Amino acid sequence: MSEIKVGIIGFGTVGAGTAACLLKNCEVVRKRTGVDVKLTRVADLDITTDRGVKVPRDILITDAHQLIRECDIVVELIGGTTVAKTFILEALSQGKPVVTANKALLAKAGKEIFEAAEANHVSVHYEASVGGGIPIIKSLREGFAANRINRIYGILNGTCNYILTRMEKENMAFDDVLKDAQRLGYAEANPSLDIDGLDTAHKTAILASLAYGEWLGMDPVFVEGIRDLSLTDIRFAEHLGYKVKLLAILKQAEDGRIEVRVHPTLIPAGKPLAGVSGVFNAVMVNGDFVGDTMFYGRGAGREATASAVCADVVDAALDLANKVPTRIHSFLPGAEYSGLIPMDDVTTRVYMRIPVQDKPGVLGKVATLLSSYGISVAELMQSSPDESGNVSIILLSHTAKEKNVQNAMAELARLSEVTGKVVMIRMEDL
Amino acid sequence: MSEIKVGIIGFGTVGAGTAACLLKNCEVVRKRTGVDVKLTRVADLDITTDRGVKVPRDILITDAHQLIRECDIVVELIGGTTVAKTFILEALSQGKPVVTANKALLAKAGKEIFEAAEANHVSVHYEASVGGGIPIIKSLREGFAANRINRIYGILNGTCNYILTRMEKENMAFDDVLKDAQRLGYAEANPSLDIDGLDTAHKTAILASLAYGEWLGMDPVFVEGIRDLSLTDIRFAEHLGYKVKLLAILKQAEDGRIEVRVHPTLIPAGKPLAGVSGVFNAVMVNGDFVGDTMFYGRGAGREATASAVCADVVDAALDLANKVPTRIHSFLPGAEYSGLIPMDDVTTRVYMRIPVQDKPGVLGKVATLLSSYGISVAELMQSSPDESGNVSIILLSHTAKEKNVQNAMAELARLSEVTGKVVMIRMEDL
Repeated sequence: MSEIKVGIIGFGTVGAGTAACLLKNCEVVRKRTGVDVKLTRVADLDITTDRGVKVPRDILITDAHQLIRECDIVVELIGGTTVAKTFILEALSQGKPVVTANKALLAKAGKEIFEAAEANHVSVHYEASVGGGIPIIKSLREGFAANRINRIYGILNGTCNYILTRMEKENMAFDDVLKDAQRLGYAEANPSLDIDGLDTAHKTAILASLAYGEWLGMDPVFVEGIRDLSLTDIRFAEHLGYKVKLLAILKQAEDGRIEVRVHPTLIPAGKPLAGVSGVFNAVMVNGDFVGDTMFYGRGAGREATASAVCADVVDAALDLANKVPTRIHSFLPGAEYSGLIPMDDVTTRVYMRIPVQDKPGVLGKVATLLSSYGISVAELMQSSPDESGNVSIILLSHTAKEKNVQNAMAELARLSEVTGKVVMIRMEDL
Repeated sequence: MSEIKVGIIGFGTVGAGTAACLLKNCEVVRKRTGVDVKLTRVADLDITTDRGVKVPRDILITDAHQLIRECDIVVELIGGTTVAKTFILEALSQGKPVVTANKALLAKAGKEIFEAAEANHVSVHYEASVGGGIPIIKSLREGFAANRINRIYGILNGTCNYILTRMEKENMAFDDVLKDAQRLGYAEANPSLDIDGLDTAHKTAILASLAYGEWLGMDPVFVEGIRDLSLTDIRFAEHLGYKVKLLAILKQAEDGRIEVRVHPTLIPAGKPLAGVSGVFNAVMVNGDFVGDTMFYGRGAGREATASAVCADVVDAALDLANKVPTRIHSFLPGAEYSGLIPMDDVTTRVYMRIPVQDKPGVLGKVATLLSSYGISVAELMQSSPDESGNVSIILLSHTAKEKNVQNAMAELARLSEVTGKVVMIRMEDL
């Protein structure tokens, strides 16, 4: 089998890791799969900085167009949604398969990119866009090919999970952990993409699209980040037997409609997902035949992401070598989708913390109000009075409709007995 | 794309599940992957018993040879190592790809079967042979294609894990749980294949072969089952912060040699594998780039196994449709193997329980003896005296060589102060 030339555009963290992996393990790949992949080009505007990987000097170039012309497989690892897209479309137009880890771009422009791939009879591979080193995309469309996907729950952002884990384990406030995470390099200087849930939402949009056969983009994804999460609620949740995770949630109802959401979520402490700590990612998939499964691994970082990128390179190389460039299509629409459930209509259990005056009749008033919105209480506790003599009512509800929960919260906020912000965190029993 | 005819030989539990999955989800498969797989034949000697799945009457036949002639993909689900092999070789000789869940047969005769596949330019697919519905084989050779596999730890037998979980959680003795498991259908009337570790060893041999590129068969697999495991040791392990699991263990040393073993193992209670309860399976893989990963799911049962069988059917169908019948070869030898580490040379930490007379000097004597074999103690506790006034010394060692541990145990058994059987369980810190 002849040598397949691989070029990497973008010599940053993941680019350098991918180069290192291809250089170190090309022989393993050849023996394990029969294909001979060779890193022949790396393109970056800066080819002088030391990236900690010994790449032969003569393969480093600054011209990505040259790389695209000269290579059989183009790996896009520059990120962002502008130049990256240009290069991907250029490679596809020349009939070159593309490997990318660019979830933001796929969430935004996946449809256009996949159409270009189909028009040119090649595939775009994007295992590294979700769950880092975890082969979740391959599992979803090949390993579970014969399953209807009932539910997916994912911890998909290592930064958020790291922050939540430290808040919980070290009893630290959100802001303090965030500052420390930034100092340690676990969070960006501008952390919004991670902590406001957008990165998780990009990945959720990709998983939802693959599971349900409609490239959804970001619009239908309901997103709430972890910025406003307080240690108080993590502690109360723990007391009630739950952990708080930023969860990607996908579900399909009996009628085929789906819900797609990302928000802090109380999950039972004994479940496998609850044990996923620090920067690790995990994805739980429930299929109609396979039942519950979970995948766990490093969701980011140079080496783990490189592992996924290189797996895609191998797949693309096998397909090139066998002259079946669209064996697995970038995306096949149509399977399972029959519309979205609007967030207002989604039903969940919820955790609520309601700060109130500590006087007779308040609990009854709150319970009556909730009940009038169809929200019934499954568990209830009350905190000790704070320095102002106020208490908090903490409750877990039975299943309730989002719209009713929102309306109830608005009405609670207007009660004179309610002394502060009402906190609500949705729950999943998994 | 034309219709691909699928035939199932063996209409037992998994056969019926596979038929149900293909019948129910063929449309999902078609939309998700582009291939049109159709169940056209099911062969069994008994085609009158109701299997709980509505298969069109006219596809049921008793003649497996006819099925092989008429179908494009042959699914072998009769089990055993005699007739199953004959049918598989017959299908291969006619150039038909084969899907099987038969770990015993592959562990025994994999080499011969894969050679026949190569000779006929087709592939044998066996995702369902390890880990039930978990796509571990696909992940190992495709998802982690660019990784050197440093370590694999697996909980691969649902029956054993079910028994161990109930012993631990319900404080029941092995024999009592086994009897109950047999009554409930979680264990066979003859449970030896499961509880003596053979089934796990079959699966371990397959994983080892794939990870290290040498089809090993059963000979090099060191096997100890759970039959002799006592509740006492599960309790002491728990007290020390460990759980006891029947673990498949694969490791590659710096020099390329590997160790392959199956035995009850103490693992830290906080690790993800320790949380795998009941009939669930899990496989932890550490690759040089991907780092630690874990896969979790149902390791057996009609539906989960059918999910894996059908994923293989889809793969085989894609390859047929694209005319690349050996895109992924059944097995490619040669990658990473440079010999075995004999069990005597394997080093592990160990748990020991040594029943001794409760008198001065005994502890010192035991410690001195262990030390003379290079076994040093990391943690130590002593039980309260039993009705005969004897106590147990319970210890966790630092890393020690298997041969030294065995010799030390033999010498301990000869001490007059030792009043009963010395128990040893190996440990892994994962």
